[in-house]
Amino acid sequence: MLDRKKRIAVIGGSQPTSKEAKAAEEVGRELAKQGAILVCGGLGGVMEAACKGTIAEGGVTIGILPGDNHKTANPYVQIPIVTGMGYARNVAVVKSAQAVIAIGGSYGTLTEIAHALQSGIPVIGLNTWTISRNGQQDNSILLAESPADAVKKALALASD
Amino acid sequence: MLDRKKRIAVIGGSQPTSKEAKAAEEVGRELAKQGAILVCGGLGGVMEAACKGTIAEGGVTIGILPGDNHKTANPYVQIPIVTGMGYARNVAVVKSAQAVIAIGGSYGTLTEIAHALQSGIPVIGLNTWTISRNGQQDNSILLAESPADAVKKALALASD
Amino acid sequence: MLDRKKRIAVIGGSQPTSKEAKAAEEVGRELAKQGAILVCGGLGGVMEAACKGTIAEGGVTIGILPGDNHKTANPYVQIPIVTGMGYARNVAVVKSAQAVIAIGGSYGTLTEIAHALQSGIPVIGLNTWTISRNGQQDNSILLAESPADAVKKALALASD
Amino acid sequence: MLDRKKRIAVIGGSQPTSKEAKAAEEVGRELAKQGAILVCGGLGGVMEAACKGTIAEGGVTIGILPGDNHKTANPYVQIPIVTGMGYARNVAVVKSAQAVIAIGGSYGTLTEIAHALQSGIPVIGLNTWTISRNGQQDNSILLAESPADAVKKALALASD
Repeated sequence: MLDRKKRIAVIGGSQPTSKEAKAAEEVGRELAKQGAILVCGGLGGVMEAACKGTIAEGGVTIGILPGDNHKTANPYVQIPIVTGMGYARNVAVVKSAQAVIAIGGSYGTLTEIAHALQSGIPVIGLNTWTISRNGQQDNSILLAESPADAVKKALALASD
Repeated sequence: MLDRKKRIAVIGGSQPTSKEAKAAEEVGRELAKQGAILVCGGLGGVMEAACKGTIAEGGVTIGILPGDNHKTANPYVQIPIVTGMGYARNVAVVKSAQAVIAIGGSYGTLTEIAHALQSGIPVIGLNTWTISRNGQQDNSILLAESPADAVKKALALASD
Repeated sequence: MLDRKKRIAVIGGSQPTSKEAKAAEEVGRELAKQGAILVCGGLGGVMEAACKGTIAEGGVTIGILPGDNHKTANPYVQIPIVTGMGYARNVAVVKSAQAVIAIGGSYGTLTEIAHALQSGIPVIGLNTWTISRNGQQDNSILLAESPADAVKKALALASD
Repeated sequence: MLDRKKRIAVIGGSQPTSKEAKAAEEVGRELAKQGAILVCGGLGGVMEAACKGTIAEGGVTIGILPGDNHKTANPYVQIPIVTGMGYARNVAVVKSAQAVIAIGGSYGTLTEIAHALQSGIPVIGLNTWTISRNGQQDNSILLAESPADAVKKALALASD
């Protein structure tokens, strides 16, 4: 059996702040340095910034796309996975990873955080959603202090 | 063109508290009284209680199932939709409704809330999740005071 | 437990010949007369003709849609199921039925025939695809002589 | 923009004849030699044989899995994509490729052939299904004389 590289998903919005985009690029860079494969939704914003960072360090980028056309992938996606399934592809983005790093993000990112938690996949957050159930905060989204810290935590928690 | 009945999704966990189950049943009952169709994930707990209420009032119940077998539907589902797509079916549960009522629930319910908000479908909550982005509370989940209030709000907000 | 009505899928192209459309309408009519629920892909052509027939006889029509908008359903769909999953919804169309009637059709219909056969769901054909494996004809698609015969066979073979 | 490698899907049954398995391995080998990425359903039989061939020549293998666990991938899958969507993942297998090579196969393979044809993706067949519409043979599945010929045709026809 092949010794598979760890796969970490980076999720976040398509219209990040410049700070979020910078963090995503650093996360992507760090993932490549640590020998992990980057999985993402394949589009722009946080996804593109993370892919750019990974490619800059010679890493591998996978983009799991909602639409029917591989040309919608951002220019730093090496391997586009074309689902044609719309937002149902969010399920595959997180399930294909052994840990998830969430950066900022809107409702799409929240769907991915929730799908990951439902599947028991660790989620590390950088300035992203917090969630409370019946007024009680749920601390399942682990906080990271920096992009490097997020990658470190993701790799430490990545399920086998 | 047929004058279609309004379709409202009721989402929530498979292991509700007795208070949540009671609320779900009342919601189901009220939906039937108002002439709306109940859409749900077709399994137990909140889904079953809501279906039970709707059937008791002569309404229509749709259960969109994750698995491959229509026999996994709870006994109050009239029309099982069998997807075989696992949790990706959560997307179809909310998209098939014109408004969503969330009662309690765990991460699966949170995925459905987030998919609804991402699709612009109104979400009414009864003792369910609250969400905050970057420390700022997001008030998109509208609070209801009672099952009847939840149904009233859902029908008022149901998109055409 | 509710005594659920049988659910039969009618599949076929969106641009049928007038003979195919007429057959689809008769199938829809006959399904309603026999108390079965019509499941289909919700769009035009064979799907619309079948729904029209079912509605004419007071039956129930379900349309499982590929897109994001329930308004894309044909005017005879009573209950639109909105998946947003593109052609992956074809899987749900056949899995939601206990038998499938195929009328004419193009490659989309062939995907549905194949998904049904893969899932062990009986397929009855009216002037539709025939398939051969390694030069050997596969007779799993049962031939019907008429719309009424197709419905009779579908109901007889509908799995429980 | 990255100069992406061509992605070719190899589809076929999980219980191939030894001749089919040998052909799949040769196809996998040839794809790697030609610098293409192998996309498949990630499980056993034809999928595993093709991955084995690709890995033997230092190529890249992607397995798009139906289940929830990356450990169900065959040992020669480098990058498992985990969908949890059952047979709906067949849509993603073919859409992620620019051409499809079908080797033998049962109904699952037929679903993939049909989804590819529906999406306008070229299909090359080695001892696989033939299809006829209304008694008229449909020659959209291009025949290959050998594994090397199948790869040659797939790469020549691969859409951009």
